[in-house]
Amino acid sequence: MLVTMTTPTREPQQDRSRATRQRLLEAAIDCLATAGWAGTTVAVVAERAGVSRGAAQHHFRTREELVTAAVEYGTDTRVAHARDLLTLADGRAGTLDILRLLADLYTSPLFRAALQLWVAASSDPALRDQVLPLEARFGRIAHHLVVDALGADETKPGVRETIQATLDLARGLGLADLLTDDSARRENLLHQWAAILDAMLNQ
Amino acid sequence: MLVTMTTPTREPQQDRSRATRQRLLEAAIDCLATAGWAGTTVAVVAERAGVSRGAAQHHFRTREELVTAAVEYGTDTRVAHARDLLTLADGRAGTLDILRLLADLYTSPLFRAALQLWVAASSDPALRDQVLPLEARFGRIAHHLVVDALGADETKPGVRETIQATLDLARGLGLADLLTDDSARRENLLHQWAAILDAMLNQ
Repeated sequence: MLVTMTTPTREPQQDRSRATRQRLLEAAIDCLATAGWAGTTVAVVAERAGVSRGAAQHHFRTREELVTAAVEYGTDTRVAHARDLLTLADGRAGTLDILRLLADLYTSPLFRAALQLWVAASSDPALRDQVLPLEARFGRIAHHLVVDALGADETKPGVRETIQATLDLARGLGLADLLTDDSARRENLLHQWAAILDAMLNQ
Repeated sequence: MLVTMTTPTREPQQDRSRATRQRLLEAAIDCLATAGWAGTTVAVVAERAGVSRGAAQHHFRTREELVTAAVEYGTDTRVAHARDLLTLADGRAGTLDILRLLADLYTSPLFRAALQLWVAASSDPALRDQVLPLEARFGRIAHHLVVDALGADETKPGVRETIQATLDLARGLGLADLLTDDSARRENLLHQWAAILDAMLNQ
């Protein structure tokens, strides 16, 4: 009890600040995915997160700063979650399971949020410069996740390009799910893709 | 000469009107692809097309109307052009040539314009209802183009899904080219994809 009493108050304050930041980042992903770029401002996100506008602007001065941080944070947490699921499966995740996990990532609110950011950046040079390192990092992380999950040997000819194609396909499936629920078509397609991947990787 | 004199003046006026409309549609594709959704208004497109604002609004009352018509027109003209190229090749276009043609379609200003429209529609229910039939039509046209070009037999198991995957891959490649020139990576990937397709379709 005494120990608790003498613990400096700084720690909980940092925890609170971190929790506020996380609430803002999650609310920004949610807001981008549903209301789009134009509907996502620091004020709107603050309200959605139940955070005062002043507190929100203490963390993020501009929409661009908030949105870029949200997509970065979202990618890190979701990819870490996917890795945990694969670790729990302990090598028993088949190719189709892995592809479904990947497709889930690319049809999630995070993908929709990232898409809003990429598209906004495509006509805004300053934002583009800010987003490019993030996009490159996102690409590397996703590539390694799939290589590790499939146990793919990238020294074999064609394997690296096939993994890249798998990620481009997942991105395309994300776009195809943007306006309609594409899950039934996607599930059939992933079965076929898993068969192609198994044939290619086990040559 | 007499014949020319007595030709009703209606015909050239219709031609002029059609030419004005086409100039507006092409300018809208160009404007969307470079300035994005927010930067594309009827007034901006009219200026870019060298058409008076009044004449532009005679053809298109709202941005949504103009943009939807532009993506529809763009799709029809580009797909017809791709068909012409394939017809000229007279069956001598290899799988890689066909994939390159497809990738060109999905990394063109038309794709960027369509992407702006899809993304805007994802957070605007009224626009979404307007865009859905167009997206379905775009999907059907692109699917038939690839089936015909590859001479694929969709009654064979897995072939339909493989063609769909090819189009989803192309869409993903379009996104990957949005912020950076992805052409070198894409060319390697298409070689590998052509090899996979040839193995799959000639089984």
